[in-house]
Amino acid sequence: MSEKDARLINKLLEKLTLEEKIGMIHGASLFRTKGVERLGIPSLKMSDGPMGVRMEFADTEWRAVGNTDDYVTYLPSNSAIAATWNRELAGKAGEVLGEEARGRGKDIILAPGINIKRSPLCGRNFEYMSEDPYLVKELTVPMIRGIQKYDVAACVKHFIANSQETQRLWVDTLVDERTLQEIYYPAFKDAVKRANTYSLMGAYNLLNGKHCCENEKLLDEVLREQWGYDGTIVSDWGAVHNTQAAAECSLDVEMNITNDFDDYCLAKPLLKKVKSGEIDELCIDNKVKNILRMMLRLHMIGDQVEERKAGTYNTKTHQEAVLEVARESVILLKNDNNELPLKKKGLKKIAVIGQNAVQIHSNGGGSAEVKALYEISPLMGIKKILGGNAEVVFAEGYYIPKRCEESDQNWQATSIYDKSLEIADITGENIGGNSEDRIEERRKQIQDQLREEAVALAKEVEVVILIGGLNHDYDVEGLDREHMRLPYEQDALIQAVLEANPHTIVVIYAGAPVEMPWIEQADSVVWSYYAGMEGGTALAEILWGEVNPSSKLPETFIKKEIQCPAHFIGEFGNKDVVAYKEGIMVGYRYYDTYCTDILFPFGYGLSYTEFLYDDLKVQLLEKENELSVIVEASIKNIGNLEGAEVVQLYIVDVEASVERPLHELKAFEKINLKPEEVHKIQFVLNEEAFSFYSIEDRCFRIEDGAFMIQVGSSSRNIHLEEEIIITRNYFK
Amino acid sequence: MSEKDARLINKLLEKLTLEEKIGMIHGASLFRTKGVERLGIPSLKMSDGPMGVRMEFADTEWRAVGNTDDYVTYLPSNSAIAATWNRELAGKAGEVLGEEARGRGKDIILAPGINIKRSPLCGRNFEYMSEDPYLVKELTVPMIRGIQKYDVAACVKHFIANSQETQRLWVDTLVDERTLQEIYYPAFKDAVKRANTYSLMGAYNLLNGKHCCENEKLLDEVLREQWGYDGTIVSDWGAVHNTQAAAECSLDVEMNITNDFDDYCLAKPLLKKVKSGEIDELCIDNKVKNILRMMLRLHMIGDQVEERKAGTYNTKTHQEAVLEVARESVILLKNDNNELPLKKKGLKKIAVIGQNAVQIHSNGGGSAEVKALYEISPLMGIKKILGGNAEVVFAEGYYIPKRCEESDQNWQATSIYDKSLEIADITGENIGGNSEDRIEERRKQIQDQLREEAVALAKEVEVVILIGGLNHDYDVEGLDREHMRLPYEQDALIQAVLEANPHTIVVIYAGAPVEMPWIEQADSVVWSYYAGMEGGTALAEILWGEVNPSSKLPETFIKKEIQCPAHFIGEFGNKDVVAYKEGIMVGYRYYDTYCTDILFPFGYGLSYTEFLYDDLKVQLLEKENELSVIVEASIKNIGNLEGAEVVQLYIVDVEASVERPLHELKAFEKINLKPEEVHKIQFVLNEEAFSFYSIEDRCFRIEDGAFMIQVGSSSRNIHLEEEIIITRNYFK
Repeated sequence: MSEKDARLINKLLEKLTLEEKIGMIHGASLFRTKGVERLGIPSLKMSDGPMGVRMEFADTEWRAVGNTDDYVTYLPSNSAIAATWNRELAGKAGEVLGEEARGRGKDIILAPGINIKRSPLCGRNFEYMSEDPYLVKELTVPMIRGIQKYDVAACVKHFIANSQETQRLWVDTLVDERTLQEIYYPAFKDAVKRANTYSLMGAYNLLNGKHCCENEKLLDEVLREQWGYDGTIVSDWGAVHNTQAAAECSLDVEMNITNDFDDYCLAKPLLKKVKSGEIDELCIDNKVKNILRMMLRLHMIGDQVEERKAGTYNTKTHQEAVLEVARESVILLKNDNNELPLKKKGLKKIAVIGQNAVQIHSNGGGSAEVKALYEISPLMGIKKILGGNAEVVFAEGYYIPKRCEESDQNWQATSIYDKSLEIADITGENIGGNSEDRIEERRKQIQDQLREEAVALAKEVEVVILIGGLNHDYDVEGLDREHMRLPYEQDALIQAVLEANPHTIVVIYAGAPVEMPWIEQADSVVWSYYAGMEGGTALAEILWGEVNPSSKLPETFIKKEIQCPAHFIGEFGNKDVVAYKEGIMVGYRYYDTYCTDILFPFGYGLSYTEFLYDDLKVQLLEKENELSVIVEASIKNIGNLEGAEVVQLYIVDVEASVERPLHELKAFEKINLKPEEVHKIQFVLNEEAFSFYSIEDRCFRIEDGAFMIQVGSSSRNIHLEEEIIITRNYFK
Repeated sequence: MSEKDARLINKLLEKLTLEEKIGMIHGASLFRTKGVERLGIPSLKMSDGPMGVRMEFADTEWRAVGNTDDYVTYLPSNSAIAATWNRELAGKAGEVLGEEARGRGKDIILAPGINIKRSPLCGRNFEYMSEDPYLVKELTVPMIRGIQKYDVAACVKHFIANSQETQRLWVDTLVDERTLQEIYYPAFKDAVKRANTYSLMGAYNLLNGKHCCENEKLLDEVLREQWGYDGTIVSDWGAVHNTQAAAECSLDVEMNITNDFDDYCLAKPLLKKVKSGEIDELCIDNKVKNILRMMLRLHMIGDQVEERKAGTYNTKTHQEAVLEVARESVILLKNDNNELPLKKKGLKKIAVIGQNAVQIHSNGGGSAEVKALYEISPLMGIKKILGGNAEVVFAEGYYIPKRCEESDQNWQATSIYDKSLEIADITGENIGGNSEDRIEERRKQIQDQLREEAVALAKEVEVVILIGGLNHDYDVEGLDREHMRLPYEQDALIQAVLEANPHTIVVIYAGAPVEMPWIEQADSVVWSYYAGMEGGTALAEILWGEVNPSSKLPETFIKKEIQCPAHFIGEFGNKDVVAYKEGIMVGYRYYDTYCTDILFPFGYGLSYTEFLYDDLKVQLLEKENELSVIVEASIKNIGNLEGAEVVQLYIVDVEASVERPLHELKAFEKINLKPEEVHKIQFVLNEEAFSFYSIEDRCFRIEDGAFMIQVGSSSRNIHLEEEIIITRNYFK
């Protein structure tokens, strides 16, 4: 910050009254703080959320205003963006979000969500990227830069270890220091140090005994001191509970979901405590300084106000960008008989089965909901690509009970379904009474009937595209899943349809892995995360080969949740305390080390072409406390189609004094190759790639000895490897 | 048609049973005829409508199915397309419609609507193009070609003289032969002869005593014999009333709105009459031949079936195309103080006033309704262009009572409003009873309150954009307007806002002219017809000068409906007989001949730049019964901005043995010029440009003598003119 800016901040701070300062550090409406008009300090306008700028809400009521001008570009979820393994696209997605947030008049956009996927059951997994901290940070950095390019602050969330929704406001998350340093901190650290995020959101949960938003160790020591963060820290909505603790730690802005704004911890209760001397006014000054510094960066105050970018929304450029992301997010999981890509020529009639072919997802999920300008459903995508010459017959396949939204005073979803309502609704009959048995029987009848219709249709056609999966009744804020099984008896449907017609393409549209008991019978399986407003277009382009799939799983697909170390070594879903006993053994770090019999590995995804890996060369350079390793390999497209491959580099610490995973992802690059084209790829690794966090030394370190460099197309498909011997110890 | 095709038709005809043939010539569901599967003859799938492919309807019920895959591109109305005076854009619009119709699996798209705008009060004017037959035909031809490029039949409608909605199924339209030939036929004739339309829709009304769909003179003599039409003639939905007449005239397909398909005139009643010998089976064969011929052209049968275009919908290309059309459809009517274009820089706060800023229009209007993929409202367009730096405050300005849809058994809208409902709805109070007076009083209160709010807001801001006009409660199928006044007390609102803030831009969004009693006080006035899904974007681009307006009125804006000759010479709105006593004196033909004191002339529209007309050169070439006149002029952009001008050429028959209008449009060209750029324009006129229809000679003729060639920028702004003397008589 320039001296001039520092002077401006100090000058403003001098002029501000205590009441005005307190007005600036807590919500004065659901998504705004108070400004100070007499000093030209505007209010801070914030908005959810990660998949597009959320619709306008009433100032003091949790109710959408219902405008016709707050439709926006609906972006792919972070889970989908992570599946692209494409830094540039993450940046483009960020630019869309930033330009639209500014276009809608916002100062802070509450995104990206980057929590580590510790268990497949976390309800918000769809909003997060990966189980691997390296992949997360590599995509988070360009995304934040993209957002902030438009004079809007990213608000990277949720800091920290907010990896379950169950009892999220009060659950105490116990995580050891090494695990924090190696797994949960890295992406946030890079968001601060590399991406210069202007703001950051404190999580709901407690970390090692203290709420994140009141946690000096976390906010003051780690974030401010160790990482040198001078942006703002905003609480998650309702994450502050204690005036003294929140005031005295590094949190800057308290937001909440209630409309008793004056009663917020950092409102009147704070004023009282400052006046009574219990809290030092300096605590408040520090918060205000952070806010003013952010305002300067955003050109909200100071002499650059006229230069602030204005933004815009719903542009064709944005729509093209989200389509581009969607295209690289749809993952081809199986294609045993090369049934994909499908051919248009001669196709007379196909069946599309399953509610997810027609479901609109943009309006669900909690704070990630978006009033999409439009949303191309998979069925529309398929009809768009086929046009009028082929008959596309749709069958629902399964029945989705109507969700009845409910949440308790802790902003926790409590019950999902009103079963009596739901059944009356679909049958039109008055079932009467509330007999659970009769309702369940009726529901079963409906499921059976829809399944029979689907099977009958499947028998009539050349090709079936079965599009099932989850929706935002399951991939949702405030609620974790109870298991990994598909809901609505979809396994039975998929099994029955596969038996009726082996030419069935199974498409799973979901935000987190599901059990696939039918996987052996299904020759063709496609996966899509929530892929935004052009998701249906992208899916159809992949199915018909207009786009060659190049997406890779950003998480391991296990068979059942019990395989997940968070569940059988650590704890998950407890209401009081959740101990992360599995430590650093998250995702493939565990599965690959312990040879878990999984469904699809981390980094996996097929293409319509094939790639040959060759010519690994590794060069080790050691200087005084500086290490670099240059890795080269050649990749050749040996198939007949142009396509892109994500070349992944994993490091194995062959021998170590502490437990280390089998291997860790430390570099990747996505390259596009024409048939026969060869690309020489080069990775330059530094100490970070080889180090672990040493509890004793309180820093990252590398122990001398053997390391294996692996290059492959997934964590379980290593094509090339070579050992190197590092001769010294490094401490960083 | 090739011999092979003719053979196929005859072969099919031989094999078809009488019942199968009858199945092919009437609706077997609301938008389909029956096919004959055993012979590979598909059913004919039709769809409304002019502004996009309408949503899917249930087969036997007048009810939208409610799919998520039948959203489409929402095109500008034909009134808007006409305002572009751009043949290429009309073609592009046609291509969008055709490709989407095919993409949605349709064979016939019920468009374009090209009836002549005889009175400003006709409810469907928004669907039609112009008061001038030359402008209509010049845009109709490329539009039909655009549609049919995609193996979809255009169905040009409504043939003929369907220029009022009142009692439209039973009103007898009396039009003399010359008027038909000069005003009402030309665009249909060119649709047939130049554009080769594959189908055409017979109108509801009677023409000179006989229903259009049962009218041999109209369908057999004029259409089939004189114009050589061999496409299909489809009835408007419910336009056939008499089995014998419809069977024996050239109508091919009877469609209706009821679901008693077997009782249609051309269904069982026809079968009975053929079997009893009252109707010759040959009549049916002719219809089937026409249908099969069209199917061949569409590659629905024959050996080109595999080559049929598949179409698609909701593409970015389509969205760009409709934006392009919208940009050239918004008309700048007044800009006295050069307040427009507005500037972004330094704009802190503006007011947008009026319901039409936020109204969604795509879902209204009758058969022109569209399930738009999205619709950018003017307010969203403005916010998109301004972004987040300026505060845009919206006020409703006026109150729109809720429409209660109702129509009688003749498919005629009967009552628009359920007033008790409407008031209860907005106030939330139980008004009780049905006292008209109390309701009216309450309505007035609401209007006054909204107007006061708007005025208060107008006083606060630098600039007001007031966006009012009509909506599809007025621009609607089945109902004519009663007068040209703006509804919802908008005149009072506009007046009050203009008084409160002279920096008010008045934008009227409507499908037909309205009274503008406030026009003297308003310095800046912009007009938009229904401009499709990107209408709001285009409007904002015009207001802020990102696009330089180049649109021209395709109709004269008069001050009050009583100035319209249809109203005071002829008749309009009668329920039994409507005599077109004004004859050829339609639109500017009357107003310019009789110097009516109008608001804005035909062909009028401002630009942000200026054009200079010069160097008129006219060259007359007469050969044996062949006349051509070459007209040249130079147009220079003498302003500072690039812009487009519509150069219009009018012909004056200085002396004639019959009454002729002052002048008639006979050529136009839209040219784009950079500042200082000069363009030499050349028009080549033939006999058509100078002729009138002679009742005596039963043909078009030119009388020798003086003609004036006029070149100008509207029918009332002639910049250049020169007389020529034609020395012979021509008969064509």
